[in-house]
Amino acid sequence: MKTVVLLSGGIDSSVLTYALVSEYEVWPLFINYGQRHLREIDAANAVCVARGLWLSERLKFVDLSGLGKIIECGLHGQRLIPDGPYTEETIDACVSPNRNMILLAVAAGYAQSIGAEHVAYGAHTNDAVVYSDCRPEFVASVRETILLGTGSKVALLAPFIGWTKTMIVKFGAGLTVPFAKTWSCYKGGLHHCGKCPTCLDRKEAFRLAGLEDPTHYEDSDALTFEMKGQW
Amino acid sequence: MKTVVLLSGGIDSSVLTYALVSEYEVWPLFINYGQRHLREIDAANAVCVARGLWLSERLKFVDLSGLGKIIECGLHGQRLIPDGPYTEETIDACVSPNRNMILLAVAAGYAQSIGAEHVAYGAHTNDAVVYSDCRPEFVASVRETILLGTGSKVALLAPFIGWTKTMIVKFGAGLTVPFAKTWSCYKGGLHHCGKCPTCLDRKEAFRLAGLEDPTHYEDSDALTFEMKGQW
Repeated sequence: MKTVVLLSGGIDSSVLTYALVSEYEVWPLFINYGQRHLREIDAANAVCVARGLWLSERLKFVDLSGLGKIIECGLHGQRLIPDGPYTEETIDACVSPNRNMILLAVAAGYAQSIGAEHVAYGAHTNDAVVYSDCRPEFVASVRETILLGTGSKVALLAPFIGWTKTMIVKFGAGLTVPFAKTWSCYKGGLHHCGKCPTCLDRKEAFRLAGLEDPTHYEDSDALTFEMKGQW
Repeated sequence: MKTVVLLSGGIDSSVLTYALVSEYEVWPLFINYGQRHLREIDAANAVCVARGLWLSERLKFVDLSGLGKIIECGLHGQRLIPDGPYTEETIDACVSPNRNMILLAVAAGYAQSIGAEHVAYGAHTNDAVVYSDCRPEFVASVRETILLGTGSKVALLAPFIGWTKTMIVKFGAGLTVPFAKTWSCYKGGLHHCGKCPTCLDRKEAFRLAGLEDPTHYEDSDALTFEMKGQW
């Protein structure tokens, strides 16, 4: 069965892509939604090459960068990306309003257009703390909306909805996901900054999973004094 | 209260814009979703100028034309627009998969970003026959998804959901909506073609409303032999 997977090039969607390939005909979709940088494109490319999806020409890129001109958020570059873990102060700069509904709606339209039966995305428990559009009640509602909007042609898969990021990292290691090729950092420098909220999440997930983190961080000491042991 | 209105420059969204201006602080949003032509931009502009919304600089255009590259549909130019009324054969070429969910998701993200409390769109009973994403059950579901996706910051308004297009035309006439400046035709020629499904709907709505149709059609005799008296 054809399945469109929202692939950002980060850990979660890369593991999801690897996991689904064995059961579905995976069509990864990378959406440029006007994010601050496009390091993620290289990562999405690299993940697909590693998993043999590149030669199949199934990876699709779509330029919706106009979104960055009407939706204000640190991820689009209008605000600074803060250092430190997610807190009430830092969350606002990292939340792109209604982003996942937009990405899923586009993915569902694309899926219907190519005759795919599913759309999949990698929302998980840790993201649900920060992002309202990663919570189970959102997933249930958006699943229903996609079904109604596509005339019951496209169903939503969100298999990590009850998982922690640590579980995803462990699972991905078993699937030999090339973590070093994935990209998480919001800042988009030469290497992961090691300080922004998503870099700290990435580090912590590897630490809790008891796995070596293959990521090159600019500031490799950040973890020790900045993490609050949230998970 | 700030309200983002999805304005396509057609009759329904133009009447909606006129209707809401008296009660809300209206912020019209025109989305280029890769449609076949952009005659609608001129129409949206003209409607805003006529209603005094132009000088307020509230009309926003956003270029998401990349959608036309991944979602196949006659409206995006990959298929021919058929002549004649909506039938099982012609509908397929005119349905852009999941279009309204995409447009509403984007409008909701924009609304949250500018601190607007509502998003409004002009779905009505006649469209519901053709488009699954104009039906009451879709509206109820997408309203819930928007609420959850935006952390209850944005609510959906769809005030025409129980109305026919004829009722909208009558209502708009009372509001002095400049119908001659609006654009419906899918083909995007110099004038409305007068033959495509949406031109036929437009003609029929004026006829049933008992109002003079100010539209210049290329083929002004089309109505007499093509309409099946559906509404």
